[in-house]
Amino acid sequence: MRSKKAVVLLSGGLDSSTVLFYALSKGFKVNVLIFNYGQRHKKEISKAKKIAEIAGVSYQIVKLNIPWGGSVLLDKESQLPKAVLKRKKIPATYVPARNIIFLSLALSYAEVISANEVFIGANAVDFSGYPDCRPAFIKAFQKAADTGTKSAVEGRRIKISAPLINLSKKEIIKLGLKLGVPFKYTWSCYSGGRLPCAKCDSCLIRAKGFEEAGVKDPLFK
Amino acid sequence: MRSKKAVVLLSGGLDSSTVLFYALSKGFKVNVLIFNYGQRHKKEISKAKKIAEIAGVSYQIVKLNIPWGGSVLLDKESQLPKAVLKRKKIPATYVPARNIIFLSLALSYAEVISANEVFIGANAVDFSGYPDCRPAFIKAFQKAADTGTKSAVEGRRIKISAPLINLSKKEIIKLGLKLGVPFKYTWSCYSGGRLPCAKCDSCLIRAKGFEEAGVKDPLFK
Repeated sequence: MRSKKAVVLLSGGLDSSTVLFYALSKGFKVNVLIFNYGQRHKKEISKAKKIAEIAGVSYQIVKLNIPWGGSVLLDKESQLPKAVLKRKKIPATYVPARNIIFLSLALSYAEVISANEVFIGANAVDFSGYPDCRPAFIKAFQKAADTGTKSAVEGRRIKISAPLINLSKKEIIKLGLKLGVPFKYTWSCYSGGRLPCAKCDSCLIRAKGFEEAGVKDPLFK
Repeated sequence: MRSKKAVVLLSGGLDSSTVLFYALSKGFKVNVLIFNYGQRHKKEISKAKKIAEIAGVSYQIVKLNIPWGGSVLLDKESQLPKAVLKRKKIPATYVPARNIIFLSLALSYAEVISANEVFIGANAVDFSGYPDCRPAFIKAFQKAADTGTKSAVEGRRIKISAPLINLSKKEIIKLGLKLGVPFKYTWSCYSGGRLPCAKCDSCLIRAKGFEEAGVKDPLFK
């Protein structure tokens, strides 16, 4: 019997899908949280559902209306920035306070179902430079959870886990392959076409990862 | 011309209404955020709108669907706990991770409109014992905001202000009277009747505050 419970934030991308299978491999009973927050395309939501179904875990979809936008990822009409692998500046794809919002809601869900951990696929190595994907942020959020929740006050601390945070994309892919992540169904592209655009930051980072891992991306098979 | 901008979380209660007028008195151009998060009654939302209108500030209403509940305040069918003025345990009216969710969304909004501060009416003196109303939590959330947002990374830190956190209810009421807060239109009761129930924690704390401040609560006039 699985006694440890986890909430896993799942976007349908490569990182969060790997985290889902990682949590399962560690013996957690997993409850997946998927956000419908007005992203450019709904493809990642359907991919996330598919991944959760393949993993055999239940999921909740949270509809979140962010009326103020503030990101090209929330505005279908705006143009995606030209892709580069390593950025000096935070790109226009940054969604204001996204991970803190997602983690807050995951924390709320975790409290209600008495989960022990919240898992997020944040990664600070091969990433777009988003500040809320770095270890310092995860650590600070943990402190907010430890001081601001009934669970923590009553001795049932909810751990915020970002197991991929210091891995390269190559290492994440290798871990995912070992865990049996169905990469074929994961979606990284900022656009929602039939095939990935192969031009955005996210596509470039993914391609480089598969290349360095020495395997073909099953999405293109 | 007002050059400082603020986001104020407004519930329609006594504390957040006082914070709104406090921010205005400090010269901020205020943008109010009101949450429709499935609370027991919609009365506080209409009161919050009324207060914002009286204050002459614009407001945004964010609809938030929290499918997992986890609080008697989110469940119209459940019974409110018997009221006491000082609690040993966190009561069933605690909404899991509420302030961290509200602050996260306020932070996102603040980033988009380039606000300098986010104001919240959290109070740790005459309160129901909610962990997310204490100074340690506000401090921890500030750190999460400082590490997790583009604004902070780029040198435009957003300050999280809880100016009432160490005031008694009596002191808050005295401050509010000085600032001209229309207490007549504020709503504290956990129920949404025509008049406050005068029985719940929130009603008891409010009544004690007005009594100690030596004024009659204009809600009952």
